[in-house]
Amino acid sequence: METAIIDQIDNKVPFYQATGKEVDIFTHTYNNKIPLLLKGPTGTGKSRFIEHMAAKLNKQLITVSCHEETSATDLIGRFIIKGAETVWMDGPLVTALKTGAILYLDEIAEARPDVIVAIHPLTDHRKEIFIDKLGTSIKAHPDFTLVASFNPGYQKGYKELKPSTRQRFAAISFNYPDAATETAIIVKETNLDEDTAKKLVKIAEKIRNLKELGLTETVSTRLLVDAAFLIKSGLPKRLSVKTAVIEPLTDELEVIDALVDLSNLIL
Amino acid sequence: METAIIDQIDNKVPFYQATGKEVDIFTHTYNNKIPLLLKGPTGTGKSRFIEHMAAKLNKQLITVSCHEETSATDLIGRFIIKGAETVWMDGPLVTALKTGAILYLDEIAEARPDVIVAIHPLTDHRKEIFIDKLGTSIKAHPDFTLVASFNPGYQKGYKELKPSTRQRFAAISFNYPDAATETAIIVKETNLDEDTAKKLVKIAEKIRNLKELGLTETVSTRLLVDAAFLIKSGLPKRLSVKTAVIEPLTDELEVIDALVDLSNLIL
Amino acid sequence: METAIIDQIDNKVPFYQATGKEVDIFTHTYNNKIPLLLKGPTGTGKSRFIEHMAAKLNKQLITVSCHEETSATDLIGRFIIKGAETVWMDGPLVTALKTGAILYLDEIAEARPDVIVAIHPLTDHRKEIFIDKLGTSIKAHPDFTLVASFNPGYQKGYKELKPSTRQRFAAISFNYPDAATETAIIVKETNLDEDTAKKLVKIAEKIRNLKELGLTETVSTRLLVDAAFLIKSGLPKRLSVKTAVIEPLTDELEVIDALVDLSNLIL
Amino acid sequence: METAIIDQIDNKVPFYQATGKEVDIFTHTYNNKIPLLLKGPTGTGKSRFIEHMAAKLNKQLITVSCHEETSATDLIGRFIIKGAETVWMDGPLVTALKTGAILYLDEIAEARPDVIVAIHPLTDHRKEIFIDKLGTSIKAHPDFTLVASFNPGYQKGYKELKPSTRQRFAAISFNYPDAATETAIIVKETNLDEDTAKKLVKIAEKIRNLKELGLTETVSTRLLVDAAFLIKSGLPKRLSVKTAVIEPLTDELEVIDALVDLSNLIL
Amino acid sequence: METAIIDQIDNKVPFYQATGKEVDIFTHTYNNKIPLLLKGPTGTGKSRFIEHMAAKLNKQLITVSCHEETSATDLIGRFIIKGAETVWMDGPLVTALKTGAILYLDEIAEARPDVIVAIHPLTDHRKEIFIDKLGTSIKAHPDFTLVASFNPGYQKGYKELKPSTRQRFAAISFNYPDAATETAIIVKETNLDEDTAKKLVKIAEKIRNLKELGLTETVSTRLLVDAAFLIKSGLPKRLSVKTAVIEPLTDELEVIDALVDLSNLIL
Amino acid sequence: METAIIDQIDNKVPFYQATGKEVDIFTHTYNNKIPLLLKGPTGTGKSRFIEHMAAKLNKQLITVSCHEETSATDLIGRFIIKGAETVWMDGPLVTALKTGAILYLDEIAEARPDVIVAIHPLTDHRKEIFIDKLGTSIKAHPDFTLVASFNPGYQKGYKELKPSTRQRFAAISFNYPDAATETAIIVKETNLDEDTAKKLVKIAEKIRNLKELGLTETVSTRLLVDAAFLIKSGLPKRLSVKTAVIEPLTDELEVIDALVDLSNLIL
Repeated sequence: METAIIDQIDNKVPFYQATGKEVDIFTHTYNNKIPLLLKGPTGTGKSRFIEHMAAKLNKQLITVSCHEETSATDLIGRFIIKGAETVWMDGPLVTALKTGAILYLDEIAEARPDVIVAIHPLTDHRKEIFIDKLGTSIKAHPDFTLVASFNPGYQKGYKELKPSTRQRFAAISFNYPDAATETAIIVKETNLDEDTAKKLVKIAEKIRNLKELGLTETVSTRLLVDAAFLIKSGLPKRLSVKTAVIEPLTDELEVIDALVDLSNLIL
Repeated sequence: METAIIDQIDNKVPFYQATGKEVDIFTHTYNNKIPLLLKGPTGTGKSRFIEHMAAKLNKQLITVSCHEETSATDLIGRFIIKGAETVWMDGPLVTALKTGAILYLDEIAEARPDVIVAIHPLTDHRKEIFIDKLGTSIKAHPDFTLVASFNPGYQKGYKELKPSTRQRFAAISFNYPDAATETAIIVKETNLDEDTAKKLVKIAEKIRNLKELGLTETVSTRLLVDAAFLIKSGLPKRLSVKTAVIEPLTDELEVIDALVDLSNLIL
Repeated sequence: METAIIDQIDNKVPFYQATGKEVDIFTHTYNNKIPLLLKGPTGTGKSRFIEHMAAKLNKQLITVSCHEETSATDLIGRFIIKGAETVWMDGPLVTALKTGAILYLDEIAEARPDVIVAIHPLTDHRKEIFIDKLGTSIKAHPDFTLVASFNPGYQKGYKELKPSTRQRFAAISFNYPDAATETAIIVKETNLDEDTAKKLVKIAEKIRNLKELGLTETVSTRLLVDAAFLIKSGLPKRLSVKTAVIEPLTDELEVIDALVDLSNLIL
Repeated sequence: METAIIDQIDNKVPFYQATGKEVDIFTHTYNNKIPLLLKGPTGTGKSRFIEHMAAKLNKQLITVSCHEETSATDLIGRFIIKGAETVWMDGPLVTALKTGAILYLDEIAEARPDVIVAIHPLTDHRKEIFIDKLGTSIKAHPDFTLVASFNPGYQKGYKELKPSTRQRFAAISFNYPDAATETAIIVKETNLDEDTAKKLVKIAEKIRNLKELGLTETVSTRLLVDAAFLIKSGLPKRLSVKTAVIEPLTDELEVIDALVDLSNLIL
Repeated sequence: METAIIDQIDNKVPFYQATGKEVDIFTHTYNNKIPLLLKGPTGTGKSRFIEHMAAKLNKQLITVSCHEETSATDLIGRFIIKGAETVWMDGPLVTALKTGAILYLDEIAEARPDVIVAIHPLTDHRKEIFIDKLGTSIKAHPDFTLVASFNPGYQKGYKELKPSTRQRFAAISFNYPDAATETAIIVKETNLDEDTAKKLVKIAEKIRNLKELGLTETVSTRLLVDAAFLIKSGLPKRLSVKTAVIEPLTDELEVIDALVDLSNLIL
Repeated sequence: METAIIDQIDNKVPFYQATGKEVDIFTHTYNNKIPLLLKGPTGTGKSRFIEHMAAKLNKQLITVSCHEETSATDLIGRFIIKGAETVWMDGPLVTALKTGAILYLDEIAEARPDVIVAIHPLTDHRKEIFIDKLGTSIKAHPDFTLVASFNPGYQKGYKELKPSTRQRFAAISFNYPDAATETAIIVKETNLDEDTAKKLVKIAEKIRNLKELGLTETVSTRLLVDAAFLIKSGLPKRLSVKTAVIEPLTDELEVIDALVDLSNLIL
């Protein structure tokens, strides 16, 4: 319920290191108002990318983190009781429609089915939504754009997107950055010395290649950044990597031991 | 809940390229007030067709996009609180019954079972519905017509329609248009040059024939139109096809690579 | 919820073509107030039969189309808010009990379990129901009769009736009419020429015998009547049969093609 | 919800034909206030027996037909809105506790778990219930007795009683009466001639022995009584048996045909 | 909901025949305020034991019979409407916390998960509970003690206790008493002659050893006491044992017959 | 619901015996405001550790014990009715955000999915939460820190944390202390003589190594402390160990007997 975050428009463009043509693609889908789906595993920068693009285009970004109980009402709005009165409160979708903001539905596949259906008329030529509780129709502001994210790496037990929804979006696949880019990100965000940053990236690459470990997800750049902060803060390097990179990945003690050995060899 | 869209009647008949006898069939089922079911995969123009026919017949169209939580109450109406009073608000079904509009239940199989039962008395000789919350019966306006859509391509995990419901509708199967028609649609909608439009259609045909890929659904005309818009907007052709046609179809990186190779050969 | 239909008593006895002893049986179970269960597939005239008998006996008929969410409250009644007051509104069961009407529970097996239990005391020597919300007991009018329908053809995934409920009803099996009767029904309802009506019935018989197609249900008389209306209205015969008879039966394109060939041979 | 039936105490003792020691057993468990469970298939007279015993002992009987949604609140009572006031309404259990009636929970295993727990303190030395909504405790009237019924014949998919509940009851098994008793019941209830009644009982015995048919339940005395009424009313004997005995047992047409042959041989 | 029973403190110590060191253990866990779990099958005296100990220690006992719908709110309290006012009503847990009573959660594993979590802070060094609806914290009275029961004999389909909950309790296993003790209990409770009481115990022992019968639970002392009451009341011995001991154990007629033979040999 | 516990800040630092680098790690993640996940089996001191660290840092600790029904509303706050007014009451998360407390989500994997999502924006660079019921955004106090616990030992039937959540936390694995540390804890908490404390620890080690018993969890230090209290209180040593250590671990009588033999050999 309480998951919409409305960014104020300011001049700060958050740092984002492009790893492909995603900036070009976004610019064109945005200009054509084609809804866009950002696909990729945890921590590959999807949310950071959309914040970066919104700031660059000087557009307001409204983020809704979807979960199993996110409903159309959460997006569209509801009557709430204020003192003795009942007042209507626009949800983040309606706010975005009216102001021409970018609406970002993070992890859209997690949401309840009425969310998916509620956005359908906004993804084709109609660009209009009917709010039955108000009895009125709202036409999208010409700048309104819909962006969503989806993690296709969850291969079992997680929710899929229906094809009839997928085909309403253009899409970009996100993945981990290459070594040079990832090193640059760490240095830029934490001021860690480049040499140690390179070693952190090397550890990440080694672990990412260990397919046989059966990890559900692997090392994200975010984990490396956390490790870098701990090192800068004075925690020993090896303990920092164990705490911020290895322990979050698995609970099996033998796997943890093996990964600690691997990282200690490099550091 | 908030999914009913009431089109205003105007003189604009949306473009629709017939691919079979569907206009004739609709005209006769409409004249006989026989409920009609539009069957077919995503993006084959079912919704566009019904909008076209409603405009041509100069009839109001009321669309309800059904989902797993659409209930009879959503269709029939409910009491809502307005200030200090409780007022009844007709749902889209009752509005259509009173005004003689065409009611279009998009993806009817997704709706809750009481929706299906609520429409039963409107699909046989009774043409009448009893609203117990009001204690009154509503007789259908003589022009009232029921149309629904259904995607039979969902072969696993999706909902079926009960035979006792199916047999209350006449039906039309929709499919992808032939190459000439599809090219014409792309050119007409996006002003793309005919030569590139032909190539987009060729790519679509190739992918549609790759049954061994195990795609849940395949390329719709809508995806081709999106690609055409991106090309017109200046994004390179190959990147446009990857973004708007291939990425929406699958998340498997090897399949994406194979489809990119295939499309690059043609473009 | 909004599914009860209360027929006014008038002198119009709807056309019903008996196919067995069902009129005699009904007359005797009605005279003895033994609850009656009408069993049979979709479109074999169960609902039409009960409407016919009610009109013939000059009795009011109250129909409730049951579905997965039909509850005892829907049948018995509830308090509703009218302006500033709370008023009790009898449900269709209580109305029938008071007025001595015939209560017809269509597709009773679909209803919630409390519906089944609520009618138990009305199906044995007690003939009385206690309404706890009112704190009063209602004795059935001597003419009150309970009739229900059930489709035993749904062999998988559909609900069964508990034996302790079944044994509270006498029962009649309904099936498709013989060729002469079915032809007569089509001619009588649509004014189609007898020759074409015979051909429609022949097509239906052929399809009904194609057990190997694995259709969940087969051609009902209702589908033939729809085809006849489309033919009378001017749609070509073959297209009418495809639209009204074949497309509603299946979504598999090869099966549709085979059935179209079969019907074209006859027409 | 609306399932409690409160019998008035009058002098009419309903006819009940004992088939074993059940009258003796009931008298002693009643005198010792030991809760009693009546076990047996549908239509073996469990409900009739308890009505008979209550009338004979000149005690009020309160019957609750349990189903999947029967809750402790349904038994104990609730606040209801009467005009502008909220008033407490005793449920059938509290009424029985206060007046010393016999409370009969028909098909107790169907009820929700809180029902089972709510009666626990009434089945041991405590004989007292605490009503938290009122903040008061109610001690059972010394005559209060609890009786429940349970159908152990449902071997799959139906609910069991927890052992910790079962062991709070003494129990009697009910079964179909022997031929002489069953004939006497039919004659007594319907005035059918004894010869035909004997034939009906013979048909029932034949069907009950056909274990290979896989019927979930078999012919109850109630079905024979219905057939007898139809015969008395003038419906042909064979049609009466088909309608009232055979059709309620099964929907498989071959089984119906076989049973009709069997019954026609006897009649 | 309505399941809390608050015993008044009086001088009557209910009869309890110890079968092991349970009185010593309870005294020490009580003195150390270590929560205690009473484990064992139905009818082994767990509830009787806690009543006995509470009376002996002259402490108030508050019993909550848990079931699948028992929630933290049921234990902690709720706002209820009294006339026009909303008043807070302490639940049994808060009452016990304030007054220093013994809180007995009977069949704790059946309760909803928030019950388990609600008692966690009362089972470690914190001994305090925060009531968010009131915005206040309640510190346990120094005499407050938590006791719970659990039936580990339910091996399939019943709920388990999470290890993180189990490890918050010390525990005692309860089982059936030895022959001499069980005979003494029967004589003491029912005044049956000792000779017959011994025979009842012998029957119980025989049945308890028949592991091959596959009974979910076996004969409890409670069943023997019921049989003794019926015998004292004049019902024949064999019929008393059948009714009070054998019929409650099973519904399979062959098993009942075998157990009747076995008991008749002894009586 | 009623599970938040707000510790007052006082100077009492609860005893905690470090078993690794956890104090260092916590200090650095706390200083960097990196969310921290405490992983490990029941009774390894996770909750005690966080209480110790909060007291040492002189920070308020707010604990929420999560369970299957803990929702975002429970954390964020709700409108409650106070007399005739509706007032907003901050939940524990908002209180922690405003005051800069440490929020400890105990057993976070048990909570409902909206809890997980609600904390996401607090675990990355945003550090801000939007409360839609109030229409306002709350920025985290610079001292606000999020800590959660998780028991990875539950290998079947228990909930997992999604990788996209795990990767938002640094993590520490907790395990049982070594023999010397565990002995010191027992002596310190209960004043038991060191010799007996050593024997208790020896028993624990033996049982922890009996992997073949298939215990879901094994002996925690908490159980040893309880046993020590009972011994100090005068209960015989062997009985104390049986009651406080062995009975909580298992219900299988043979396993209990084997563990009793094992412990008797040592004591």
